[in-house]
Order: sequence, then C-alpha cells, then structure tokens
Amino acid sequence: MIFTITLNPSVDIQYRVADFKENTVNRVADVSKTAGGKGLNVARVIRQLDEPVAASGLLGGSLGDFISKELKRLDIQNDFMAIEGDTRNCIAIIHDGKQTEILESGPVIQEKEANGFLTTFRELAEQANWITVSGSLPKGLPDDYYQEMLAIAKEVGTPVLLDTKGDLLARALQSETPPYLMKPNQDELADLLGKETLCIEDIKAAVQSPLFAGVEWVVVTLGELGAVVKHKDKAYRVQSPKINAVNPVGSGDSVIAGFATGLARQLGGEKLMKFGLTMGVLNAMEEQTGYIDTSKIVWCMEQMEVMEI
Amino acid sequence: MIFTITLNPSVDIQYRVADFKENTVNRVADVSKTAGGKGLNVARVIRQLDEPVAASGLLGGSLGDFISKELKRLDIQNDFMAIEGDTRNCIAIIHDGKQTEILESGPVIQEKEANGFLTTFRELAEQANWITVSGSLPKGLPDDYYQEMLAIAKEVGTPVLLDTKGDLLARALQSETPPYLMKPNQDELADLLGKETLCIEDIKAAVQSPLFAGVEWVVVTLGELGAVVKHKDKAYRVQSPKINAVNPVGSGDSVIAGFATGLARQLGGEKLMKFGLTMGVLNAMEEQTGYIDTSKIVWCMEQMEVMEI
Repeated sequence: MIFTITLNPSVDIQYRVADFKENTVNRVADVSKTAGGKGLNVARVIRQLDEPVAASGLLGGSLGDFISKELKRLDIQNDFMAIEGDTRNCIAIIHDGKQTEILESGPVIQEKEANGFLTTFRELAEQANWITVSGSLPKGLPDDYYQEMLAIAKEVGTPVLLDTKGDLLARALQSETPPYLMKPNQDELADLLGKETLCIEDIKAAVQSPLFAGVEWVVVTLGELGAVVKHKDKAYRVQSPKINAVNPVGSGDSVIAGFATGLARQLGGEKLMKFGLTMGVLNAMEEQTGYIDTSKIVWCMEQMEVMEI
Repeated sequence: MIFTITLNPSVDIQYRVADFKENTVNRVADVSKTAGGKGLNVARVIRQLDEPVAASGLLGGSLGDFISKELKRLDIQNDFMAIEGDTRNCIAIIHDGKQTEILESGPVIQEKEANGFLTTFRELAEQANWITVSGSLPKGLPDDYYQEMLAIAKEVGTPVLLDTKGDLLARALQSETPPYLMKPNQDELADLLGKETLCIEDIKAAVQSPLFAGVEWVVVTLGELGAVVKHKDKAYRVQSPKINAVNPVGSGDSVIAGFATGLARQLGGEKLMKFGLTMGVLNAMEEQTGYIDTSKIVWCMEQMEVMEI
C-alpha cells in the first residue's frame, strides 16, 4: 500500500470567463471545483494505475468534507486527520488567454495538532510500503517538520518519496535521514544551487555531488525534454516522446505517482525510470490535472530512451 | 415566528489584498467566509432584534453544510430544503480601493426540487406569522415562481414582505395576490418604470399609482436620504439622521428585517416606519454586512422624521 501525504490541501476552483474586469461584478457560469493539492494528484494517478493507495494529511471544515467526499467517490482510502481550522480554497481565473490565481494561505495548525499528526504519521508509516510527501507546509508547522517525518519513516523502515522545493528541499537534504527519492524540477534544482539556469552537465554534476549522496534516486524533470535521473552513483538522461502538451499542471505529481507505483511493483533500473516518467507525459496530454489515459502507458514507455551520461 | 426565504444563498468569500495583479499568482492571508444571501442577512438582523426567526430556501453540497453550521451558531432555526446541486460561492476581492466581484450563478434546480419546495413552503407558511422573500431565483425555477409562492401564502393567510427587482418585481406586482410589503430602492423603482432617475414627486406618484394598489406597504429606500413610504393610500417622506456610513451593503435587507420584526410586534404607522428604517441606518454604521448595534435603536428612532407628503 502506498500512502500519500498532503499537509495543506485545497478545494481548487476554476472559473473560465470570456472577459474579466476589475472593480466590477463578473458573473461566471463555467465553474469547476476539485480536490486539490499535490499529494491528492499523486493519489489520483496511483488509483488510476490500480495500485492500492491511501491519502493522508490535515483536513478541516466544510471544504475538508468536500475533499473527503471526493476521496470516497474515487475509492481512495481516507486517512486524513481532522483539524480545527478550515481547509483552503485556491482559485484560478482563466480569461483572455491569461491565468490569474488567488492562493489562500490556509489554516494555522495548532501545536497539539502538529504533534498529533506525527503520531498518526508513525502509525501510517508502519502500515505503508511506500510514502509520498508533496508540497509546502501550512502555517503553524515548524520548518523542520518534514525532517521529523523523515526520521520517523526511517525508524519504522518505510522509504519516502519527497517532492518539495526551496528551504524545505534544502533542509530535507541536510537531514540525517534523507528521502529515498527526490524529484526537483530544473528550476527548483537551480534555485537550490543558487544558479539562474542549469545545463545537462550542471545537473549531472549536481545530482552526483555529495549533496545528494544519501538519496537513492534523484529525478530532475526537464519538462518536455524528459529528465536527468541519478540512481545510486550513476546518472542517466531520459528522453520522452514529442507530444501535444495540453496541460502540464500536475505532471510532476504524476511522475511521483509513477515512481511510487513502479517501486511498489518492484520495478528497477531503466524500466522504473521509463514507467515513472511516462505518467508525467501522459498527464500533460490531458485537460484534467492529475489524470492519465492508462491505455497509452505501453506506447509511451516504448518511446522513452534512457542512456547513461 | 418570522420565516425568511433565500432561494439562491451563497458562501461569500472576501479577500483583502494590498495589490491584485492579473495573469499571476496572488497570495492572500486576509480571508473571510460567511453565510451570504439577502434572506440570510434578514434572518441575522431579526435574530439580533431577539425575535424568533427561521431561515429557509435551497441548500446543497459542502457549502450548504457550511451555511447550516453558521445558522446553528447564530441560533437561527434551519428550515432549508436539501438539493442535489451545490450551493455557490460569491467572491469579493478588495484591492487598491477597488472591489472586484466574481458571482457564480449557482446550482440548477431540478423540476422535482422546484415542486418539492412549494410543498415545503406551504408547510412553512402555515407555521409562520410573517414571511420575507429576498433576492433572485436560481436557474431551473420558472420566472413565475415567486407568484406561485405569493398565491400559496395568500391561501394560508400569511403576509409576505418581498424584496426583489427587475422582471421578478414586475411580475409580483402583476400577480393577483401581491405581497403585503415591497421594498424597491430608488434605482430599482426607476428601472421598473423605465426611467433614468426619479425625484421625490415621481416616487410619490408612482407608489400611489394603480401599479401598487394592492400592496399595503411600499418602502422606497433612498440611501442616506431616507425613504418614501406608502401605506394604504397615503405617502410619507422619512428622513434619517446623518451618519458616518461605513458599509451600506445589506442595509436594504436590514430594513426588511426591521419591518418584519416591527409588524410581528404589532407596530404600525410612524412607529413602524421609524423602527424598520432604523435597521438600515444601523447596518450602514457597521463594517459587517447584516449586523446592527442594537444599543443605538432608541437613539436612531428619535432622530427619524416622518411627514406626510
């Protein structure tokens, strides 16, 4: 069983309007509301891959109830912990070829809730074969919260796939118990290294540097150009097929879902890389975020090229 | 007991941002979410006046649950009917001295739900001493739905205070069973008469015209200038005290709450006019929509001037 963790989920609202005007009333008829958050995208794709999956994290209020109902509908095991605060909305207004977003910061987690979730997390980690942890931390949780979670997972022997960025990524790498797999994209890795841009050679050098020494798998995604993958002490360039990208949002989450599922199925080496990255490609081919057409998996894996660099 | 009806309620979200930019991510920390809809404002003010009140209409989904919880917290009897569709959000972004609004159209009511609510409404009308009906109709309800409700209320002998505009206002006036009280504001009355603006004399003539012949009370609110009130065949000019208006939103709903409460307390004539309009003034003095400082009622009523015109 794979457990996915989303500590600051959201109900994502999408408004499509022909014309959006400031300082007036905009009436919208095209509205969609979905359970959002990176870890929930991961869970959705794992579920589509027909692998048993549970979702956990922190949920509160009526928007928390909305997400619980959505998990039930999708047949994803619900292991979220209830909090007193209210789960947030994140809004995307799509208008005139533009995307204007409003992101609420979300609830402030109380200290007893923060401690309570670490207990819950220990129990989940004991049941899980693999754990994915995605996204940022809600307010109220200490900056080293992911490090505490990584230490607990290590203690109970469950490997973690971590997808985060910035300071949280840096702290995870400095941890004594680093994750089993990390998936920074090219920009996130550049940001970590304090560089503007990175070429393939820079990425190869970075993932093989002492910084990532304790991390079994490092997957640096390059968008439509594929990925650079480090496994143990070797680095690989993976090239994905040219596709018509419709919506790349959620492709990183789909890659995490692919690797978690592949690892749960004991895939390794080239096959794991191809399987994992295929889910990112397939997600980009669909309108819906965190959704793949599973009938295209075999085709996509056949198109993938892996070479050691 | 007063029953307030809101057929298309909403969870109102207010974002205050220093700077709002299109085509980018706007992070907001100042978020408030409240039970919205004109009839819910009416119910809130009646509750503050310590008069027994029930709220009814149509609620669905997790945002419907949010409103139910809010009613419980406010100690307002909840007689809403559950629908399959989801109750809507209405969003106000307050930025750079501007207010940008996004109004969702809300759920589409199914035919069986429309018919079901008329049965519910008959039961409520039988229990109620007074009924208020506020706002617009959600999609799926026929244009003559308020007329059907007015006919039912007449049958069971319960007077209705109706606050709507445009075509729904026109249809209610053409109804064989018009409401007991109507409260168009100056602009809504001008719109009904197909005029650009109206002076006091125009308003006096209009409310005493055959158009409003069957309506016991007509209250035409003029914002900070007070109101023109018609009672039976006489017209009155009511002047309210000069105040520092902080937020006039919901003042019309507060006037409905004032008149409903006054009528339930068997006030009449000048006293009813003063009491009813006082609630609009007091609401405008507060930041919060549909909220009054009850300690100021006596002061405000003393400042009100009524003269026959």
